[in-house]
Amino acid sequence: MAMVCLSDFEAYAKKYLPKIAWDYFAAGADDCVTRDENILAYKRIRFRPRMLQDVSVMDIRTKILGTEISFPVGIAPTGFHQLAWPDGEKSTARAARAMNTCYIASTYSTCTLEEISTAAPGGLRWFQLYIHRNRAASQQLVWRAQTLGFRALVLTTDVPYTGKRRDDVRNGFRLPPHMKVKNLERDFEGDDCSEYGLPPNSLDPSVTWKDIDWLRSLTHLPIIIKGILTREDAELAVRHGVQGIIVSNHGGRQLDEGPATIDALVEVVEAVRGRVEVYIDGGIRKGSDVLKALALGAKCVFIGRPALWGLAYKGEEGLQEVLRILQDEFRLSMALAGCASVSEIGRHLVQLSKL
Amino acid sequence: MAMVCLSDFEAYAKKYLPKIAWDYFAAGADDCVTRDENILAYKRIRFRPRMLQDVSVMDIRTKILGTEISFPVGIAPTGFHQLAWPDGEKSTARAARAMNTCYIASTYSTCTLEEISTAAPGGLRWFQLYIHRNRAASQQLVWRAQTLGFRALVLTTDVPYTGKRRDDVRNGFRLPPHMKVKNLERDFEGDDCSEYGLPPNSLDPSVTWKDIDWLRSLTHLPIIIKGILTREDAELAVRHGVQGIIVSNHGGRQLDEGPATIDALVEVVEAVRGRVEVYIDGGIRKGSDVLKALALGAKCVFIGRPALWGLAYKGEEGLQEVLRILQDEFRLSMALAGCASVSEIGRHLVQLSKL
Amino acid sequence: MAMVCLSDFEAYAKKYLPKIAWDYFAAGADDCVTRDENILAYKRIRFRPRMLQDVSVMDIRTKILGTEISFPVGIAPTGFHQLAWPDGEKSTARAARAMNTCYIASTYSTCTLEEISTAAPGGLRWFQLYIHRNRAASQQLVWRAQTLGFRALVLTTDVPYTGKRRDDVRNGFRLPPHMKVKNLERDFEGDDCSEYGLPPNSLDPSVTWKDIDWLRSLTHLPIIIKGILTREDAELAVRHGVQGIIVSNHGGRQLDEGPATIDALVEVVEAVRGRVEVYIDGGIRKGSDVLKALALGAKCVFIGRPALWGLAYKGEEGLQEVLRILQDEFRLSMALAGCASVSEIGRHLVQLSKL
Amino acid sequence: MAMVCLSDFEAYAKKYLPKIAWDYFAAGADDCVTRDENILAYKRIRFRPRMLQDVSVMDIRTKILGTEISFPVGIAPTGFHQLAWPDGEKSTARAARAMNTCYIASTYSTCTLEEISTAAPGGLRWFQLYIHRNRAASQQLVWRAQTLGFRALVLTTDVPYTGKRRDDVRNGFRLPPHMKVKNLERDFEGDDCSEYGLPPNSLDPSVTWKDIDWLRSLTHLPIIIKGILTREDAELAVRHGVQGIIVSNHGGRQLDEGPATIDALVEVVEAVRGRVEVYIDGGIRKGSDVLKALALGAKCVFIGRPALWGLAYKGEEGLQEVLRILQDEFRLSMALAGCASVSEIGRHLVQLSKL
Repeated sequence: MAMVCLSDFEAYAKKYLPKIAWDYFAAGADDCVTRDENILAYKRIRFRPRMLQDVSVMDIRTKILGTEISFPVGIAPTGFHQLAWPDGEKSTARAARAMNTCYIASTYSTCTLEEISTAAPGGLRWFQLYIHRNRAASQQLVWRAQTLGFRALVLTTDVPYTGKRRDDVRNGFRLPPHMKVKNLERDFEGDDCSEYGLPPNSLDPSVTWKDIDWLRSLTHLPIIIKGILTREDAELAVRHGVQGIIVSNHGGRQLDEGPATIDALVEVVEAVRGRVEVYIDGGIRKGSDVLKALALGAKCVFIGRPALWGLAYKGEEGLQEVLRILQDEFRLSMALAGCASVSEIGRHLVQLSKL
Repeated sequence: MAMVCLSDFEAYAKKYLPKIAWDYFAAGADDCVTRDENILAYKRIRFRPRMLQDVSVMDIRTKILGTEISFPVGIAPTGFHQLAWPDGEKSTARAARAMNTCYIASTYSTCTLEEISTAAPGGLRWFQLYIHRNRAASQQLVWRAQTLGFRALVLTTDVPYTGKRRDDVRNGFRLPPHMKVKNLERDFEGDDCSEYGLPPNSLDPSVTWKDIDWLRSLTHLPIIIKGILTREDAELAVRHGVQGIIVSNHGGRQLDEGPATIDALVEVVEAVRGRVEVYIDGGIRKGSDVLKALALGAKCVFIGRPALWGLAYKGEEGLQEVLRILQDEFRLSMALAGCASVSEIGRHLVQLSKL
Repeated sequence: MAMVCLSDFEAYAKKYLPKIAWDYFAAGADDCVTRDENILAYKRIRFRPRMLQDVSVMDIRTKILGTEISFPVGIAPTGFHQLAWPDGEKSTARAARAMNTCYIASTYSTCTLEEISTAAPGGLRWFQLYIHRNRAASQQLVWRAQTLGFRALVLTTDVPYTGKRRDDVRNGFRLPPHMKVKNLERDFEGDDCSEYGLPPNSLDPSVTWKDIDWLRSLTHLPIIIKGILTREDAELAVRHGVQGIIVSNHGGRQLDEGPATIDALVEVVEAVRGRVEVYIDGGIRKGSDVLKALALGAKCVFIGRPALWGLAYKGEEGLQEVLRILQDEFRLSMALAGCASVSEIGRHLVQLSKL
Repeated sequence: MAMVCLSDFEAYAKKYLPKIAWDYFAAGADDCVTRDENILAYKRIRFRPRMLQDVSVMDIRTKILGTEISFPVGIAPTGFHQLAWPDGEKSTARAARAMNTCYIASTYSTCTLEEISTAAPGGLRWFQLYIHRNRAASQQLVWRAQTLGFRALVLTTDVPYTGKRRDDVRNGFRLPPHMKVKNLERDFEGDDCSEYGLPPNSLDPSVTWKDIDWLRSLTHLPIIIKGILTREDAELAVRHGVQGIIVSNHGGRQLDEGPATIDALVEVVEAVRGRVEVYIDGGIRKGSDVLKALALGAKCVFIGRPALWGLAYKGEEGLQEVLRILQDEFRLSMALAGCASVSEIGRHLVQLSKL
């Protein structure tokens, strides 16, 4: 089977992963409207390609928070990589480093931050954080991440409670006994870790904007806020001094029937007016999706499920293949749209459908 | 079979109910456009969820006509519950009381108002009324309802004649011999009760706004008007002194190709300007639909077919399960949208699709 | 098989008619976009029903060109009724008279005007006319129609040449040998009548607005112009003194991808400003479609294919059944929308979809 | 099998061509969104047909760059006609001459320009040009074309690199050994001609607007620029002195999710304001599509895939049949829309859908 585009990896993963793992990765909340809209919304955007630009020398590098990456696609935080590949997040880390891009490691990793760091020393990594009711646990995680050289904290804001993913309920989803949310293994030792590997309701639903200050008091790392979908929250995020915003709806796994991220990106970018970097995840399936997101103001995109499909296919090699395909497609679509470097990408390249 | 969401109950009911009963409950008028639009219209509305609100303490209670209910979902008036479950409306009444919400008993009940009252003493109940050509019959019903402690009258206005439900015509729908429109059994004794359990054309098609006054002269109960779909009629309803309006198209069973109720709600709420409470029924299939209806100005929603599916599944237990799922989903979607109490829900939470 | 709605007759006709006849009746031009749009466009229109109107006494009669008919639905001109039923247009005439409505007999009838008149003396009939290259033939037809008591001439304007109906080409459509375009049998005796029963290209493609004057010079009958789809042509028609306009796209059989008639009706009615009566055909499939057309300004609608399905089912009885169903549905939808008589129907009853 | 419309030829070609050849001709880039949109966009445009125009004498001739052709449909440049029919481009040339229209021969022909010229002396032909890194090769082609009597140069601008056509990648598309890009056979002799018959990356991605001047310095032939999709580029093209613009997205084979050509035509025509001729290709499937393109300002359309289907069916005869069908359909749709000659076609004939 030739792996020509990301859908090929999806088909492979669907065929070869255990159903319970596939369902977990594929799941959206409720009717999966938002999960699917994330993809469909890209299809409603049309390019306005420009001809006869010199695109003989293509430069697809960009910088995020001042660090150069090979192209504007990073790895979004997703949980339980060992469900996709035995080496789990260690493979992810190696693939990201090999492709010279950024990997946002999830709190819900099945490897520890230390294992991840050791697996791919020197790689650019950010750490994704939830704030737990057990604040000490979160605090320890922040300190470990900082010590291990993670370069930013990504605070997820859209999970005061876990979304309702019907297939996980039907399957009675549980981590296999040999997998753990290893970063928090000691904090919840002996507890009933039945909700996605942690005790039910362990996340703190009382977190507010003030906790950004608390978080900043713990660390000198830049803080990126993930899950913003409105101009109002984008403004609040800037005012609370974050360094970046990830426009995200958690892959459609939390509140169903919220906006597609690419639709929300437009208003967030308008509100932010360049004061902080804006990123996006959700629905990226080919290189031209990346181009659209950048044209609408994203500095970088992050891929979630496609990275897992790559892992499921061949571990770090599979993930590299996914990234390489995206890289080639992104470069080609840039050239065909008339852009030789990322700095030439702008709002003029796209037309939002009247639909 | 795990009952995870309301569609599971629908699938169960479709599988286990006799075809003639399923068809009767499922029926829409003519091409069923409005019946289906009731559901589809919700899908066109997008949330604008707000992050980092303290949602650790959730309060989903509300009040309707001054009485507190456990959450803003009641049972809409539908006919012939014995077609779904042997105990019929007695089970419905028990389930509503157990879940501390409001049950609107239909004139077309297969139990008497007295049986319903006795089955669940103390439950919050309203009585749904048609005005019959035989006005004495209607009058008696009003008095019985008032005496039995029903707390409001709900006047249905969209049935001057019965809508054309093709499947019922094809099936030659008739109540099984052991079932009756028991509340009116004596009034039509010996008549040919071939039109949904009553004599053909027994409803009075000459009813006008003036009959609101007649109704008020009979009772001190609040009057709620059901079936309003336009700003013009909403204004008339307020002027005629009703206490509440239910935006309803009778589940798409009367005039086909009228508006989806959630679409009509917007203009009704605008017209009413808070002078009376506005409720809605039709198309509610998950907790986030409730949230959307409240965001657009409904004080409470009422479920019709889903309640019948619950009854068909396990009688009062099944209906309680349906209500509990809606309650959990509503609470979760509120939290994920950033609202800790019903009073925080507002128009800012949703964006009406340009579609 | 219960005949509950018009689709039941369609299914019957599709099943029992010879394929070549079914295909001929069903055919649309080219990709059949306009044929199908005629129906779909109705579905995009929403009613704004009003409640609590006294609809106990329903009056669905109307007048066209001053003559009362039992309800605002007539029979559109269509060809070759013997393909559907042995008695052909004689049955059509009888059914129309029995139902007290108007039948527009087609030039392409398989019975003569004389046979039609004799079959149902006293019925309200109009005669549909093409202008042939052989003007004498057309002139004779006008005089025969006038003499026989047809009450108006309906000039079809959208067939300078016959549309391309792929199935007819594939089937090599020819009238069976025992059927003829009987009204013109003598005019084309001995000719190669291979194009729908007449010599190829027998219609005159040089007809212009000036020929309205020619036509008027031949007869004192009112002239109705059929096939108008734009405000510009509506204005011209009024200026040329026609008595009525039928908004029509020939059932989607001529120019494909023109507008649905119900969409074109809006601009035609606006342009006409009540100076002449406006009618419509195309896409009427249930009583509420009639109500929509009247709400948008049509004085009466005409049905084409549904009449043929009725004939195919049971001749004049079948057609009466079709008309009776439409009558019942129209009356019911009027009542449910809050109108007791045709004069109460108006633009306020509908909302054109933003789609 | 009767060949009634262009889809019949498509079905034939799909059935009888080797899969690898069919896939190559059918391919679109990536998800094929733009390829399919080219067709769908025509369906969203509605005619506004005018009645009672004298259409007895139809004149469908037009002129392009001053030369008369029998109707406004030419043959777009497409590669590898021998994949469809043994005689390849020689058959194409003969069919175009027989139908008195223009054939744009592709650089990627499997016959030489000399063979094409000899096959159909006196035919109206333009030559489609890519600019290769090996500029001498391009220069030679220009001179040969000019010497052989080609009447214009068509510079393709949307292929700095080849689009990603997944099926070609999966099939490992290669020309069969006996076929060559014959016009450049000597230039790349001995090279690895694995990318559509030429060495990988042989096209020059550094071409800019300045190269229009270079091209003009080589030849006195008119220069037509192909691949323009925006008003900005249309303005630049005019300023750089081209004689014509072909609005094209390469049949959806280059940048996916760019605009449908008929959508882009509107803004290009507006920008050009009549200063040069504007043509279009992509998505033409029936005569009324041609009429729409002309109504929106195109001077002529060019067909790509339909010409290949014609060849696949019966070589030059098949292609003539395709052209004849288009001619008949175009003439008929003109007449039905009320236009007797091409000069009467205008913007008033169409309404762009609000969709």
